[in-house]
Amino acid sequence: MGGGDVERLIQMLARLPGLGPRSARRAALALLSQPETRLLPLARAMETAARNVRTCSVCGTLDSSDPCGICSDPARDHGVVCVVETVGDLWALERSGVHRGVYQVLGGTLSALAGRGPEDLNITSLLDRVRAGTVREVILALGATVEGATTAHWLHDRLAEVGPVMATRVGHGMPIGGSLDMLDDGTLVAALTARRPA
Amino acid sequence: MGGGDVERLIQMLARLPGLGPRSARRAALALLSQPETRLLPLARAMETAARNVRTCSVCGTLDSSDPCGICSDPARDHGVVCVVETVGDLWALERSGVHRGVYQVLGGTLSALAGRGPEDLNITSLLDRVRAGTVREVILALGATVEGATTAHWLHDRLAEVGPVMATRVGHGMPIGGSLDMLDDGTLVAALTARRPA
Repeated sequence: MGGGDVERLIQMLARLPGLGPRSARRAALALLSQPETRLLPLARAMETAARNVRTCSVCGTLDSSDPCGICSDPARDHGVVCVVETVGDLWALERSGVHRGVYQVLGGTLSALAGRGPEDLNITSLLDRVRAGTVREVILALGATVEGATTAHWLHDRLAEVGPVMATRVGHGMPIGGSLDMLDDGTLVAALTARRPA
Repeated sequence: MGGGDVERLIQMLARLPGLGPRSARRAALALLSQPETRLLPLARAMETAARNVRTCSVCGTLDSSDPCGICSDPARDHGVVCVVETVGDLWALERSGVHRGVYQVLGGTLSALAGRGPEDLNITSLLDRVRAGTVREVILALGATVEGATTAHWLHDRLAEVGPVMATRVGHGMPIGGSLDMLDDGTLVAALTARRPA
């Protein structure tokens, strides 16, 4: 289809998460129909990102600078570290604007099934920060999964070893806008357990 | 989120058809997590495509060579030209392997609403080919829409002016694997009208 260059572009686009073969063809056509204004600018944005973006040596997020914009922002509260599994989780929190502290990106969870142990998690820089005594609170914002809970539990113990720090977890319960009959049983139990005076 | 380079990459990915903001972020993360093996190769495939891919001066498809691989293939039947609206339609027919002739990509349909007239369609090279007397049959494989039918009708008349050539249209009816009660009324009418001896 359209020679090797087109075919190769389609195949590589189809490997992107969220794009299948059909949408990859549509995307390739859209890009190829405007090579100067769409295809080349995207290619250049990718090259620039590949050249400039690195992993922050403090928190583990992706940014054009190291330390990242968040870790080097004096306006943020460096005494409150929010621990998340992935960079995507960090982005979600940043979009909500709810967290004005800093982060630690683990890069995953402990998982016996996937063979991920403590040595596979990005925690050294978190423990260093806690040891240095600058951290008041560590918010464990991990997924509400078995692996997330296991990791939070393990990390809670690990933090207690290295220094006096308050560890908290995000609340579980009914999503805002949700209705009771749409909730799964696990969330229902969590929501009832976390009940507070009205 | 992650500095200007990351943000810019996400925004440009989000403009691809089929990708929204959320999937664009997922795609950006997947690419950035493997800059050498995923991000840069995709960027380079895009630059190569932008540099090499052009519109075939004979049929109007996109290819790395001009004339394209189909138009310059001596094994194909250059006496049968299949007229399609878009390059995507040509790709669909090529995947099916049903057409062993050549193509003409109109680049759209006539549309009073969108202000597209005959001068906006890529037909000159088709009329030239018919005039040259090398074309036996023109298959009008246009969309089963009002605009597709209008364009097919107009093109049929136009072809009759320039040379003796058989113009045919693709059959309309029930899709293979389809069931009667899933068909819209227009397709039902077309399927009944196109009935043949069993």
